[in-house]
Amino acid sequence: MTKNTKVNAAIIIIGNEILSGRTQDTNTSTLANWLNSIGVKVSEVRVIPDIEKTIIDTINLLRTNYDYVFTTGGIGPTHDDITAESVSKAFGLDYEIHKEGYKILEAYYKPGEFNEGRQKMIWMPKNANLILNPTSGAPGFNVENVFCLPGVPSILKSMLGGLTNSIVGGEPILSLTINLRTVESEIADSLTKVQNNNKDVEIGSYPFFHAGKLGVSIVIRSQDQSKIDNCNLQILNFVNQMNIEVVDR
Amino acid sequence: MTKNTKVNAAIIIIGNEILSGRTQDTNTSTLANWLNSIGVKVSEVRVIPDIEKTIIDTINLLRTNYDYVFTTGGIGPTHDDITAESVSKAFGLDYEIHKEGYKILEAYYKPGEFNEGRQKMIWMPKNANLILNPTSGAPGFNVENVFCLPGVPSILKSMLGGLTNSIVGGEPILSLTINLRTVESEIADSLTKVQNNNKDVEIGSYPFFHAGKLGVSIVIRSQDQSKIDNCNLQILNFVNQMNIEVVDR
Repeated sequence: MTKNTKVNAAIIIIGNEILSGRTQDTNTSTLANWLNSIGVKVSEVRVIPDIEKTIIDTINLLRTNYDYVFTTGGIGPTHDDITAESVSKAFGLDYEIHKEGYKILEAYYKPGEFNEGRQKMIWMPKNANLILNPTSGAPGFNVENVFCLPGVPSILKSMLGGLTNSIVGGEPILSLTINLRTVESEIADSLTKVQNNNKDVEIGSYPFFHAGKLGVSIVIRSQDQSKIDNCNLQILNFVNQMNIEVVDR
Repeated sequence: MTKNTKVNAAIIIIGNEILSGRTQDTNTSTLANWLNSIGVKVSEVRVIPDIEKTIIDTINLLRTNYDYVFTTGGIGPTHDDITAESVSKAFGLDYEIHKEGYKILEAYYKPGEFNEGRQKMIWMPKNANLILNPTSGAPGFNVENVFCLPGVPSILKSMLGGLTNSIVGGEPILSLTINLRTVESEIADSLTKVQNNNKDVEIGSYPFFHAGKLGVSIVIRSQDQSKIDNCNLQILNFVNQMNIEVVDR
């Protein structure tokens, strides 16, 4: 397969527990870092409630807008786990027992323990591809460009390795961070000039407070290392002229 | 002012650093917990990049769909801080120096230090209401039902207290958590029955792993304490029958 220059993705975090503030989402950064490493840029994240129509509408919108869509959450055995049925409806596919998934879970549980609640976890859109789960048995699944993963962060992480070959990314997105002992307002003008001279590079500026001291992290992002290096030189140039210290964070 | 029964909100997290995975968003849970406490339910969160058109379109969509919209990020002094200008365009308002904000920052900085970069922080939509910042001077702002806050979590937190009187919430959203020494698939059927008998109560089920042991947190949420108590009794009833241990987490 040939590599596109730019490949993008959206993430849908499904779960009332994130919207209520009870649970802190960490899956976005896990997925985004992993996707960056295989050349996929995350363009949008939505956190939505466990409401079927919202899930269906969001999936159908984002799967046409982006190369890939990843969902997290809602594929467990309880009544509030409605992702698989919603994805089936989004694609107009039957929602049914996945035969290969059934065999996996039948082997995973002790005889007699593969009860109705557990069987719910292998009801999926017809002909979905399984995403294997090395941690806790129950697989995720993939239909076309939509990949459905669990919400539990440790389980989600363990499933990404097996997915890498299913995703065709572009050139990896490279980044360089320069940490400065300054505040943003001191360097804003100079940094704007560098950004204006390098419009196809993404330059971000982020204040930090570490070990009792204020600083600013400048993050340069591009798929082209030479463009990053060029920006880096231009930034270090004004940093030196202004006698600003470059620090480890 | 009279209290509506249900008041909702959307959160827009503006920032490439969240989408790249470099920074873990924590503002969603901070805002959601605070909003719950004043009777506002977060119905949707979107994380979007520092792109003007995306910010404008997202604000204009969500401010008509929800009672309140909160944005975080993009109100600092650097070139990638474009929230205030984007909000001005979303509302069709002039983007100009806010006189009251100017006085606040002029007094905050030492003479001669209130440079152009710092002045950028008080360019706002015409006639915006200021949201005072007790931590670092530069205020946020509010236009109609849209409230714009900074991205730095500690600063954002310090600004919420001053905002409470600007938000008219409904009845606070109450919740009760029951932690059980079990796995979800053991209780899925029984819990579904309780949910079906109490359709106007939100019952969530969340596996946890704590101190080396698996468990499930059942979270019951409603604006009506008696409905929560009623659900609680029904859950404890099947929990007792199944000899499942109720634990502290």
